[in-house]
Amino acid sequence: MCPLTLIEQLKLNNDSVNKFILDFLPKRDKVNEIQNFYDMMRDYPSRPGKGLRSSLCILTCETFGGEREKAIRTAAALEVFQNWILIHDDIEDSSEMRRGEPVLHRKYGMPMAINIGDALHAKMWDVLMNNQKILGQSKTFELVNEFLRMINETTEGQHIELSWVKDKRWTQTEEDYYRMVNKKTSWYTCISPIRLGAIIADVEKSNLDALIPFGSILGTAFQIQDDILNLRGDEKKYGKEQCGDIMEGKRTLMLIHLLNKSNPKDNGKILKIMNKSRSKRTPSEVNEILKFMDKYGTIDYAKTKAKKYALEAKKQFNKIFLTKPSIQSKTLEELIDFMVQREW
Amino acid sequence: MCPLTLIEQLKLNNDSVNKFILDFLPKRDKVNEIQNFYDMMRDYPSRPGKGLRSSLCILTCETFGGEREKAIRTAAALEVFQNWILIHDDIEDSSEMRRGEPVLHRKYGMPMAINIGDALHAKMWDVLMNNQKILGQSKTFELVNEFLRMINETTEGQHIELSWVKDKRWTQTEEDYYRMVNKKTSWYTCISPIRLGAIIADVEKSNLDALIPFGSILGTAFQIQDDILNLRGDEKKYGKEQCGDIMEGKRTLMLIHLLNKSNPKDNGKILKIMNKSRSKRTPSEVNEILKFMDKYGTIDYAKTKAKKYALEAKKQFNKIFLTKPSIQSKTLEELIDFMVQREW
Repeated sequence: MCPLTLIEQLKLNNDSVNKFILDFLPKRDKVNEIQNFYDMMRDYPSRPGKGLRSSLCILTCETFGGEREKAIRTAAALEVFQNWILIHDDIEDSSEMRRGEPVLHRKYGMPMAINIGDALHAKMWDVLMNNQKILGQSKTFELVNEFLRMINETTEGQHIELSWVKDKRWTQTEEDYYRMVNKKTSWYTCISPIRLGAIIADVEKSNLDALIPFGSILGTAFQIQDDILNLRGDEKKYGKEQCGDIMEGKRTLMLIHLLNKSNPKDNGKILKIMNKSRSKRTPSEVNEILKFMDKYGTIDYAKTKAKKYALEAKKQFNKIFLTKPSIQSKTLEELIDFMVQREW
Repeated sequence: MCPLTLIEQLKLNNDSVNKFILDFLPKRDKVNEIQNFYDMMRDYPSRPGKGLRSSLCILTCETFGGEREKAIRTAAALEVFQNWILIHDDIEDSSEMRRGEPVLHRKYGMPMAINIGDALHAKMWDVLMNNQKILGQSKTFELVNEFLRMINETTEGQHIELSWVKDKRWTQTEEDYYRMVNKKTSWYTCISPIRLGAIIADVEKSNLDALIPFGSILGTAFQIQDDILNLRGDEKKYGKEQCGDIMEGKRTLMLIHLLNKSNPKDNGKILKIMNKSRSKRTPSEVNEILKFMDKYGTIDYAKTKAKKYALEAKKQFNKIFLTKPSIQSKTLEELIDFMVQREW
């Protein structure tokens, strides 16, 4: 039997995880309002996603010798986490599109979308607790602790970013950016999915902390790539509005680089545009920012940084997994390459 | 030693629970943004509340022969629940005041307030999981299941109410109102606090379901009283803006009664005011609604209903607790009377 390609493997994992989630979430009620409540809960989980985080968890579990089946619930809880936090993030960032469709609060209004995010948040714990049946209570509590840490880091990271936007502060150093990204992105995208997979595969507690720097660097490479795609990606494949980050006033590596490198006159023009409120920034102003980025080689700079972090992640990967060559570790390696080189 | 009065007992419980919460939540960080994140998390929990739900849990536990100390963490988790869901509800309902201060999103902006609600939501699970240490894993999972049910019911109830507001629907029957209130209020205010106390006191599983109708009726009486206080309460004691429910377009028992009883001409006037968006409803229009309520005896009607439910709750209480007369059951009874007769 031919081994599956990475894309086939991702699809296989994603299908199992999505099936679990959609079977788990409630479907039908005879009261109209409750039916609508269920439909809204199933909205984001039904939109096509890549399931990178759940695959990272499943493949790590397998690479460490664990069974795939034992990781499905935890992978599903990771995807439900991603769904509820995106519903709320989309409101916090005034985003417009998500996975190729209008964000939830544009479809149903902000009050209901906040409440649905909360309901899904609770369902995430429900899915996770479901592990008791197959992993026992103690192991489930270990997974719960990892989720608590993950949510704590993610909300802290989101808070840092929102603070910068609120205070109209543009004096961030690259160090500030990396610290924010580590909390906002790396934990839930890489560190915890990897550690959760390892916990399920019975990796010793003392070895779990070594996975943090690896996930942290991988997550940073992933986020820089995501920032670049936000500017240059194919909107249809990428699923979010193009240049949404500039519209939303996000502190990306590119914007921080641009503000550090631009001459005082350009700097003034950039800040004037970026300090407007989102609703007042026009598409032609976004274009102006893009032109400045071209002028100062900002995107190339970000690409170089992404590559540097991707290489470093690869080095760490080899250090951790080199002793375990297998079909699974091969696929995991391919996934890691994909995460930092993807076009969508 | 004299037994404590109800108010002294509430204060004692509230102090223990608040101390636990404020010790549990993070305090200090050298990064400014994280410090602000912690301060915001501690904001609602630091505002003076009555702690009715936590006292209900603690006193039920004691009445069933359980130890007070064993209920503190769960009572704390109930208060943290109340805090995070209020942060989000205050956004969803466009409220202005909470416990005598501006709502969190008026102090810090909506994006940060949503995110803090999420961070506190996760802390609630953290507090609850902390029970492992004193109650063991199995009992903790039982408490977790009750919390999952509670959040599910509460968010469903909130969704029903938000749907009515969004669709500008004013054709609710009293039955619709009671169903909504049972989900939105009774579960987290009465049913779950009582059941959690009982679980901690090792009440048999088969006896837990008998507590549902009691908590349901008690919660209904509590909500009607809350609706009345919202119109007639002393704003300083009550802590929310007076007539906020009318401003927010809430379907209270009074408004449903008013729409059912008013003649077609008055009905048209009432609907015209209530169908405006919140920001367009003026204080003088709110006054007009109050006058119609006087004309149709709406508040007296609601008071009669509140009394009826309070009496029914008392009957159920006696059925359940009559076999356990003790100082604790006496205080629990007083608390129940207070919940449905309170002026604040």
